[in-house]
Amino acid sequence: MVNKNLIDVYSWPTPNGHKVHIMMEECGYRLGKDWLAHPIDIGAGDQFKAEFLVISPNNKIPAITDPQGPDGKPIHLFESGAILLYLAAKTGKFLPKSTRDKYEVLQWLMFQMGGLGPMLGQNHHFRLYAPEKIEYAIKRYTNEAKRLYGVLDQQLKQHAYIAGKTYSIADIAIYPWTRNWKNQGIEIDEYPHFKQWFEKIGERPAVKRGVEVLASLRKPLHDSKAREQLFGSTQYQKRI
Amino acid sequence: MVNKNLIDVYSWPTPNGHKVHIMMEECGYRLGKDWLAHPIDIGAGDQFKAEFLVISPNNKIPAITDPQGPDGKPIHLFESGAILLYLAAKTGKFLPKSTRDKYEVLQWLMFQMGGLGPMLGQNHHFRLYAPEKIEYAIKRYTNEAKRLYGVLDQQLKQHAYIAGKTYSIADIAIYPWTRNWKNQGIEIDEYPHFKQWFEKIGERPAVKRGVEVLASLRKPLHDSKAREQLFGSTQYQKRI
Repeated sequence: MVNKNLIDVYSWPTPNGHKVHIMMEECGYRLGKDWLAHPIDIGAGDQFKAEFLVISPNNKIPAITDPQGPDGKPIHLFESGAILLYLAAKTGKFLPKSTRDKYEVLQWLMFQMGGLGPMLGQNHHFRLYAPEKIEYAIKRYTNEAKRLYGVLDQQLKQHAYIAGKTYSIADIAIYPWTRNWKNQGIEIDEYPHFKQWFEKIGERPAVKRGVEVLASLRKPLHDSKAREQLFGSTQYQKRI
Repeated sequence: MVNKNLIDVYSWPTPNGHKVHIMMEECGYRLGKDWLAHPIDIGAGDQFKAEFLVISPNNKIPAITDPQGPDGKPIHLFESGAILLYLAAKTGKFLPKSTRDKYEVLQWLMFQMGGLGPMLGQNHHFRLYAPEKIEYAIKRYTNEAKRLYGVLDQQLKQHAYIAGKTYSIADIAIYPWTRNWKNQGIEIDEYPHFKQWFEKIGERPAVKRGVEVLASLRKPLHDSKAREQLFGSTQYQKRI
């Protein structure tokens, strides 16, 4: 029987989208039974539609609506980091109960949100998507990627998971951003502790399911219309 | 009498540093009496010293040591977003008790951590610091700044503070990144609701004190040695 309290996930198969898709499956929710994935085609401009902006005022995916919010009423949430925290609290999973261990996870979650994600995002932009090849920017963000993978490698040399002994939302947040290491200018063998973790996480059934959610919809970003939606003036129009 | 349980803040007068300095003062801690500001001169390379990396493995400021951690033992924390959450929980201030209101704050905190901060950071880099003037990158990050200020303006049209009716760590996280709006290519009068908020926050005594912490130490970034520490190969050396 279909659950009437399906959680709606508005998303796209990008690293930030994958985070939430993986988290849903890791939490024991099953796509189609407990949650629905609504595609927001960011190459087609779906993120600028009024109905999406109500949920996600920053016009970014992912966003969710949980019909059973904290007070029993529906709640909308945007920003993948906030959604991970919300789902961890709701299900009691992947965020330690001990205050000390919880902050260990929170600081690595913030490392992903504030550093790893945005900087690898710029790396992707200048290495893969920008219409001009700008040597300075490519070097800047390739070097920063190497630095970040070095930080991860050091941490994973000492710990089985990003924030210690147990799998957490820090791992769930970081993994999807590193799947594209080849295109980021990274030689994975130079980061053996990271590599071991990367392979281990990739074997998790919920992770395998999560990265496939909506994946068939993503097209290579080669047409000028998609480019315009993502990087052109449309992106920067003042909303009314 | 000097408090024996002084919180040590390892920091520098940058937007991420200011966040924590403001938060300390807003929480009722007083510089020199309840907390100490230890300068980590990021232009001189202090962030790469072994003793700092123990506290902040990502070689970024700010980081803190609280001698009275959650279990009574000292705790180290890095990442400004995690530090704000920690101090809010410790003092019971600037993060609402109601779960719904708390997530409202968390999503805007994540908006700052994942979007506003990193993108304005790239804006500063290409507009102010990069040795070459790269038109494409300057345009990209100036446009993104305008988009982000537009999002803030819309939100502040509807709410007195970033995450609703009350001042929170979302305001504390966002304000320092917007102080430099002139250099970001922003015309503040185009964002009247933002402007009103900006002026209101700037009048808070704790904010005024916070932005002055260590401020006299910051030098204009013109010499090649500081540039090398911040953007050159030093930054990207693999740590041992």
